[in-house]
Amino acid sequence: MAALFRWTRGALGRWHSHVHSVQVCSRSMASKTQVGFIGLGNMGNPMAKNLIKHGYPVIATDIFPESCKELQELGAQILDTPADVADRADRIITMLPSSPNVIEVYTGANGILKKVKKGSLLIDSSTIDPSVSKEMATAAEKMGAVFMDAPVSGGVGAATSGKLTFMVGGAEEEFTAAQELLNCMGSNVVYCGQVGTGQAAKICNNMLLAIGMIGTAETMNLGIRLGLDPKLLAKILNMSSGRCWSSDTYNPVPGVMEGVPSANSYQGGFGTTLMAKDLGLAQNTATNTKTPVPLGSLAHQIYRTMCARGYAGKDFSSVFQFLREEDGQ
Amino acid sequence: MAALFRWTRGALGRWHSHVHSVQVCSRSMASKTQVGFIGLGNMGNPMAKNLIKHGYPVIATDIFPESCKELQELGAQILDTPADVADRADRIITMLPSSPNVIEVYTGANGILKKVKKGSLLIDSSTIDPSVSKEMATAAEKMGAVFMDAPVSGGVGAATSGKLTFMVGGAEEEFTAAQELLNCMGSNVVYCGQVGTGQAAKICNNMLLAIGMIGTAETMNLGIRLGLDPKLLAKILNMSSGRCWSSDTYNPVPGVMEGVPSANSYQGGFGTTLMAKDLGLAQNTATNTKTPVPLGSLAHQIYRTMCARGYAGKDFSSVFQFLREEDGQ
Amino acid sequence: MAALFRWTRGALGRWHSHVHSVQVCSRSMASKTQVGFIGLGNMGNPMAKNLIKHGYPVIATDIFPESCKELQELGAQILDTPADVADRADRIITMLPSSPNVIEVYTGANGILKKVKKGSLLIDSSTIDPSVSKEMATAAEKMGAVFMDAPVSGGVGAATSGKLTFMVGGAEEEFTAAQELLNCMGSNVVYCGQVGTGQAAKICNNMLLAIGMIGTAETMNLGIRLGLDPKLLAKILNMSSGRCWSSDTYNPVPGVMEGVPSANSYQGGFGTTLMAKDLGLAQNTATNTKTPVPLGSLAHQIYRTMCARGYAGKDFSSVFQFLREEDGQ
Amino acid sequence: MAALFRWTRGALGRWHSHVHSVQVCSRSMASKTQVGFIGLGNMGNPMAKNLIKHGYPVIATDIFPESCKELQELGAQILDTPADVADRADRIITMLPSSPNVIEVYTGANGILKKVKKGSLLIDSSTIDPSVSKEMATAAEKMGAVFMDAPVSGGVGAATSGKLTFMVGGAEEEFTAAQELLNCMGSNVVYCGQVGTGQAAKICNNMLLAIGMIGTAETMNLGIRLGLDPKLLAKILNMSSGRCWSSDTYNPVPGVMEGVPSANSYQGGFGTTLMAKDLGLAQNTATNTKTPVPLGSLAHQIYRTMCARGYAGKDFSSVFQFLREEDGQ
Repeated sequence: MAALFRWTRGALGRWHSHVHSVQVCSRSMASKTQVGFIGLGNMGNPMAKNLIKHGYPVIATDIFPESCKELQELGAQILDTPADVADRADRIITMLPSSPNVIEVYTGANGILKKVKKGSLLIDSSTIDPSVSKEMATAAEKMGAVFMDAPVSGGVGAATSGKLTFMVGGAEEEFTAAQELLNCMGSNVVYCGQVGTGQAAKICNNMLLAIGMIGTAETMNLGIRLGLDPKLLAKILNMSSGRCWSSDTYNPVPGVMEGVPSANSYQGGFGTTLMAKDLGLAQNTATNTKTPVPLGSLAHQIYRTMCARGYAGKDFSSVFQFLREEDGQ
Repeated sequence: MAALFRWTRGALGRWHSHVHSVQVCSRSMASKTQVGFIGLGNMGNPMAKNLIKHGYPVIATDIFPESCKELQELGAQILDTPADVADRADRIITMLPSSPNVIEVYTGANGILKKVKKGSLLIDSSTIDPSVSKEMATAAEKMGAVFMDAPVSGGVGAATSGKLTFMVGGAEEEFTAAQELLNCMGSNVVYCGQVGTGQAAKICNNMLLAIGMIGTAETMNLGIRLGLDPKLLAKILNMSSGRCWSSDTYNPVPGVMEGVPSANSYQGGFGTTLMAKDLGLAQNTATNTKTPVPLGSLAHQIYRTMCARGYAGKDFSSVFQFLREEDGQ
Repeated sequence: MAALFRWTRGALGRWHSHVHSVQVCSRSMASKTQVGFIGLGNMGNPMAKNLIKHGYPVIATDIFPESCKELQELGAQILDTPADVADRADRIITMLPSSPNVIEVYTGANGILKKVKKGSLLIDSSTIDPSVSKEMATAAEKMGAVFMDAPVSGGVGAATSGKLTFMVGGAEEEFTAAQELLNCMGSNVVYCGQVGTGQAAKICNNMLLAIGMIGTAETMNLGIRLGLDPKLLAKILNMSSGRCWSSDTYNPVPGVMEGVPSANSYQGGFGTTLMAKDLGLAQNTATNTKTPVPLGSLAHQIYRTMCARGYAGKDFSSVFQFLREEDGQ
Repeated sequence: MAALFRWTRGALGRWHSHVHSVQVCSRSMASKTQVGFIGLGNMGNPMAKNLIKHGYPVIATDIFPESCKELQELGAQILDTPADVADRADRIITMLPSSPNVIEVYTGANGILKKVKKGSLLIDSSTIDPSVSKEMATAAEKMGAVFMDAPVSGGVGAATSGKLTFMVGGAEEEFTAAQELLNCMGSNVVYCGQVGTGQAAKICNNMLLAIGMIGTAETMNLGIRLGLDPKLLAKILNMSSGRCWSSDTYNPVPGVMEGVPSANSYQGGFGTTLMAKDLGLAQNTATNTKTPVPLGSLAHQIYRTMCARGYAGKDFSSVFQFLREEDGQ
């Protein structure tokens, strides 16, 4: 898909200026010593390959041995458990589907923290609840290791081409060390603040994205019913205060833009089921912090209902189709 | 307030290119013959003044005689009723608070249509239900006159400085004639399609605007609760897929931007009560066309509840304050 | 369908006690003089038949002549226009699909008010916007006639068996006169207050009904997912504070109750499209009175979305099916 | 407050008939051997007292020693930790504020499971996430103990008078044993199914209750605005399909009923903040099971917003006041 995050180079400079401290720790940053990688799924696999391409020796593991074959052929060393990886590498990246997997991989019986070396840098790129990130950070700290959350934006395409965006939370003085590795896999690495703020930034962005997308779909549908030409309406919105990413970059109405999922039967892109998952995280986070999020909450319900009605695999901009009169499809 | 609509000059050229037909009718466009103006409220008054500034003799009326004094001193001729105005001018602009007023001024006992001349051009700049615009157009057509809807974007400031945006619906061959007058009062005049589409465009934009604003307020509030710096979060959103006008141009969180109502205790700007009115129009329109607008509908309810809780007079970005924990204010 | 309204006889006595005034006007209530009936659709037809059964001579009309045949065979006199009916009968009942029809039938070129006799009683049983009822009442008053709104609860079955419920708004001193006729067609006639309150009561009830139904559907679905037996859950709710008409009388989950649409593939009952229409009226009414109705508004959107997704003809309890996981159906 | 759950005796018989198996285990049910009680807050304190009243020797602990004084004076033995209690009693009841407390009390360093005896019966009356109940049950089973969830309905008053309702989840063959103790503290004990279904039943009921309450408040407010008398409207709803517990037993409009919080400035009753907590559990549970709950979700957001706007301590029926026009209060 087209990356959901687009950073301009100019702006990037400012982000980088956040980081002025110098990294001094036992990990040698200059030499390309081995890097651990745990979780070789659709995203983890191409990410690990990019580390290899950049010359890093990779030591990897996955709960499904077959996921490791491709990487092994590229020279990666495959071990049995996260603990084994932690025993051999002092920089480890994890890329897992959900919070329980992260908890298991870090704190389980064969988890990283069983054998982690003092001073190790542990970077979790999974998208999970920020409170779990904080728990992992506390547990890592007890073992003398550093944990950072660094969820990604961008799909398999961006993972393959090394164009992911990483939103990073954790101790600011460790950011440079994390950046060295993350730059191999992404084109933008943003420092967000303390542990958990990487997750927070991603969750917040995706919640607002969902709201904007459903809002755009409703608005375009209403305008069309009222006799407006869809392309003209999109132009008016995009020059006005209704403008948003979903209206000007990823318009959900077929025929308005090219190169977006709405131009391709809502195939590809960012699946409704993934959006529902992220909105679930936003909802849980909002509930736990007692924050009212009325539109975010309704957006979650709409995407959840869409999953129940057969839209799980379509791009999340298919909400336009979901809301339209059936005869009109 | 800063205009809610911002048009770039470059883009404008394309809008203008929509209009290639030549205007041929009995109305003399070259000469500056008198123009009727009905409705001299906060908006109508400065609009009519701008017509005078551009050299047009103005014949006006208002239900409140005192509203006419200022214009009279500038040389406008004040008559008693809309019918009287229609008897003297073949180009008339109306600027009224709501649908019932428009119906009365056009079709009432002393309404425009009682004495309208054949071939007259009637331009209504009120923000009303598009179905009422269509009714008025039909009624005008029966009398041999042309009706166009041309609601504005931009507040009293833009009306005074002649920088309004007009969204125009009606017969395309009449657009040039309308433009001649509207250009005196606005910096952007956009042709939207058949009668009612001017209203439709405005209603659609403001509905998406409201959704984006509440969404931004929720998202910023959630992010802050999760430990993100508000300015940093706004930057991240604005570089990402969560970006919208409310996040990058009119951020509702105090301290994030300057020169917006959130930097000034939510004074000025676009009042919550006005937004609630526009969302009410959107809701009625959606109901009547059987169009599902779940987020637009909830946005309407939230602004309506805010009006009930003391926010009626504050800028609509005060929804951020409404959703925050009271202690935190 | 099972009547949506169920009145107990005991309670009914109290309603009737609202009416203690004696009816004195030119209309002879004792004699069974002719009654006008306008609108012979699915509901109007059986209603008019019940008037005939009770010995009233009926003078009727309908925009579709074929709708009148059956009634004509039963002895009703069929005329061409509402004005003709008003010229012959001083008690008239109207049963029409929506507000514009009511406006036309009363105030149109061949409308009732063109030839209405002074002192006539005009009873409108259509379900429309209360503000239109008020307009009609004002127009009738100018002609010396009395208008009352008396929308019904109960479907075609109740209309046929004479078991409708009427909610009546209008001058209290006319209620007895209205009751005489309405009792022929319904088993419950409730006086609600001034003109428009009959509509208000119906709209309010159906809005709360929709909220309760969707809420019950969500709750049952959630409970089932959490491992509760549906019948047991219904019992627990019905003995507790979650109890409502939709949970204890019209449960939307197949298998929980017998004799309700959920036991019959959601056939029969009260169609989703009719509920969406009533919720649209509630929404318009709330918008026009600036009343926040967040759940009513969302319920409207959900039923509107269901209409767009193929549920228009199913009973409104099919929202349970709409919200369920597709595979589970 | 009036108990939110009201069970009729007649119906109760049927519940009891669910339980036909005979309890055979090492715990002596006939003799009144000591019972452990952990968590002596506002609810736990009067509950433990009722056990003492019924002749059970109680062994208790609480994280706040001062909470134990009153019970100690009544003869209870106070120990330091949950583990100590488990070491001495083979029937234990826990009553704690939230999931993390339950996890700590059961599985913490000094938790029950550290010293629990084989065959012990552990009953948790806290209101928590059903998934946590399941986790605790699994952990208890590993130690040879039985865990049941038994959240209560009814407030401090019902706890004091021994009139609570318990919704019980767990192995059916253990229900009789649980009942023996719960009957000392409550007037209704309902078996709901496997572990977690007690929580599920409570969460479901309270979600539907919240939806019904907000719906009733909206509907009453709308009806009043439309000119209906509140008492009359309540009567109409209660005889019709809009009927629900909030309209007929706990009406939120001042003046409609006596003896409810709306008659007493919304003091007492079930606090908005507690309802928001239960709706948060419902939301988390729905999110985790991927169940769409649009109205439940919006109800959560409304109660959450009310907490942010100063309604945290008022009864949850104060949503009527929250939605009304301020001037009208």
